[in-house]
Amino acid sequence: MSAWFNACGVISITTDFGHRGPFVGTMKGVILRRLRSAQLVDLTHEAHVHWPAEAGFWLERAYPYFPEGTLHLAVVDPGVGTGRNVLLAVGDGHAFLAPDNGLLAGVIARSRAQVYRVEPERLRPLGIDRLSATFHGRDLFAPLAAELASGRVSATQIGTPTADYIPALIEAPACRGKEIHGMVVTSDHFGNLITNIDAELLVDRQVLGVRAAGHRIAFHRTYADVAPGTLLALVNSFGVIEVAAAEQNAASALGLSRGGPVVVELA
Amino acid sequence: MSAWFNACGVISITTDFGHRGPFVGTMKGVILRRLRSAQLVDLTHEAHVHWPAEAGFWLERAYPYFPEGTLHLAVVDPGVGTGRNVLLAVGDGHAFLAPDNGLLAGVIARSRAQVYRVEPERLRPLGIDRLSATFHGRDLFAPLAAELASGRVSATQIGTPTADYIPALIEAPACRGKEIHGMVVTSDHFGNLITNIDAELLVDRQVLGVRAAGHRIAFHRTYADVAPGTLLALVNSFGVIEVAAAEQNAASALGLSRGGPVVVELA
Amino acid sequence: MSAWFNACGVISITTDFGHRGPFVGTMKGVILRRLRSAQLVDLTHEAHVHWPAEAGFWLERAYPYFPEGTLHLAVVDPGVGTGRNVLLAVGDGHAFLAPDNGLLAGVIARSRAQVYRVEPERLRPLGIDRLSATFHGRDLFAPLAAELASGRVSATQIGTPTADYIPALIEAPACRGKEIHGMVVTSDHFGNLITNIDAELLVDRQVLGVRAAGHRIAFHRTYADVAPGTLLALVNSFGVIEVAAAEQNAASALGLSRGGPVVVELA
Repeated sequence: MSAWFNACGVISITTDFGHRGPFVGTMKGVILRRLRSAQLVDLTHEAHVHWPAEAGFWLERAYPYFPEGTLHLAVVDPGVGTGRNVLLAVGDGHAFLAPDNGLLAGVIARSRAQVYRVEPERLRPLGIDRLSATFHGRDLFAPLAAELASGRVSATQIGTPTADYIPALIEAPACRGKEIHGMVVTSDHFGNLITNIDAELLVDRQVLGVRAAGHRIAFHRTYADVAPGTLLALVNSFGVIEVAAAEQNAASALGLSRGGPVVVELA
Repeated sequence: MSAWFNACGVISITTDFGHRGPFVGTMKGVILRRLRSAQLVDLTHEAHVHWPAEAGFWLERAYPYFPEGTLHLAVVDPGVGTGRNVLLAVGDGHAFLAPDNGLLAGVIARSRAQVYRVEPERLRPLGIDRLSATFHGRDLFAPLAAELASGRVSATQIGTPTADYIPALIEAPACRGKEIHGMVVTSDHFGNLITNIDAELLVDRQVLGVRAAGHRIAFHRTYADVAPGTLLALVNSFGVIEVAAAEQNAASALGLSRGGPVVVELA
Repeated sequence: MSAWFNACGVISITTDFGHRGPFVGTMKGVILRRLRSAQLVDLTHEAHVHWPAEAGFWLERAYPYFPEGTLHLAVVDPGVGTGRNVLLAVGDGHAFLAPDNGLLAGVIARSRAQVYRVEPERLRPLGIDRLSATFHGRDLFAPLAAELASGRVSATQIGTPTADYIPALIEAPACRGKEIHGMVVTSDHFGNLITNIDAELLVDRQVLGVRAAGHRIAFHRTYADVAPGTLLALVNSFGVIEVAAAEQNAASALGLSRGGPVVVELA
């Protein structure tokens, strides 16, 4: 475990709040009240609503591209206003703040993080104590993120080390003989279908093709390796198997979305 | 009235421009030409198009979460290019700049602002004088916002105090015996229906339930108080009555949108 | 040609990545790793997917509103992972970085830029050498943008001057007697239809009207010159002919979109 975190003032923000209404902007206002020099980066606000897994999937794969010392704030929080815990994970030189609902499980594993359960009563001296029942992103996560990103507050000051947190919500892919059975986690703006099948599972084995939605799809290196409209599978830039249609929308073409089965055939 | 404003360099931006095209980005470029150190925060750019009321509704409720000294720029401007006035309101330590079309009325009331009518001829010495007919967000509001947020220009320098401005466009809810009759102002990304019924109207009175779209809906504290899919009403994090469906989309479920009637039943 | 560029630390970002997933945010993380003080402005991420022309059309018209010394990064890149070149153009005090696919042609013409072909082997000393096959926005464009915007790296250091680049992808409008025949390039969030007909083509000639989708549409100065719902044509704030419907959506009303023919009738 590597619980070193030297705050650099950058905060990434991931939510399922979308862009309607003042929700994300208000969180940023709260952060700036406490840390005027914060560098705020939206990771995405179009994470699948009420499903923490997609937000965690992307955060796990995106965080290494941020500066060391970044505080990553992720709020997909169907349990807002209940007794669910809040987690702070510190690993790989980064810190991660999110509700304890499975969102951070993959991040914790990848960054070999030390995990802390945030203790609400220890937030009171910071003036974080008047919480609405429905918007802890604004009332708890944003101000705590600002305090942590400023370097004024440390993990041990507001949290208790714990190994007890909600596990990942995305089933791992299953290796069955010469096949890997996985599923679609999400699609992107282009309609590329992104799976839970990590390319590490393929190491040293040749991929013969991918099966999805009744199609057998050839494996390539990049989109332009095939003619526009042609289906292809590839290892995408975040290291997972992706099904795409060159310059077209594979999600529409195949009628696949979250949870759809994808099988990789190995030699 | 509290016309004190000590600019802190933060500018919040609210528009109905959406995210297609270079409109918001160009405004930011203009601001940075005049104030390179500006801290720019998008409140929302998905405000209801051509209807200043929603933008004003959110700004009124969101501004207190920003640092004192924030300049709030709001451009929903169907009258662009006509003789409509431009308002600068200063209250509660914040400043608000918007077209005079009702957008700011609620903000002015809540912040007990001093209101100024911006005088176009006084903008000329600032180099704000060549306006297109259709994009004053870029040609007038953005550069003036930068000047005000920099602290170089004061309200009295570019405006004339006035008490004459367009009133709010959202009807106030009506109290009829044991009922409060209001309406849906907007919905959020989750499909939660947000009404114009302020929780202050409920003070000391028990809520029996809410009626909307032919349903009688129970009143709760937060979403997770009911089973997923169940309709509920609550006081939301911005202090107004909201109709939601736990982990589902109430707007779709009820077929309600802007203007839809909502009735709160009191004991 | 005016190849002067004095980096001011502002980076504008234009892509067709949309807002789902961590793609734009990850690029920003990469930039901040190299230039912690960067001022990042999203121009748009809703450029037409896989069609570099719209991104270039807007960038050409929006860049002059940014501070001199801005680095404009534009990634619409259907050829990612192939041998397509990368261009750096320096003109008008601005710098522009994009794939060589026609995106920058209009920008280069308008800014009378000096164009450089980026030489991959000269990026290695900068640590820009491990490229994925599908996300050069993150692996090449973002880190190079940071280096250029920091002022640490100059155009001649990483590129070779060239006059050989892909031309513009948008056909120029045709002047036929008293008519100018153009087309719709894109529509905005309001449904205004934006054409490739530059107002400079109209100089000193009276516009009688515009024909589009079987309608003859009157020419006005601004939206509020006609009653809500009425179709009108005007010169928009970026200097091109636009077809709109006052407070309504012209794209829906006319059923027109990208490529749709528009004819301007001159006296």
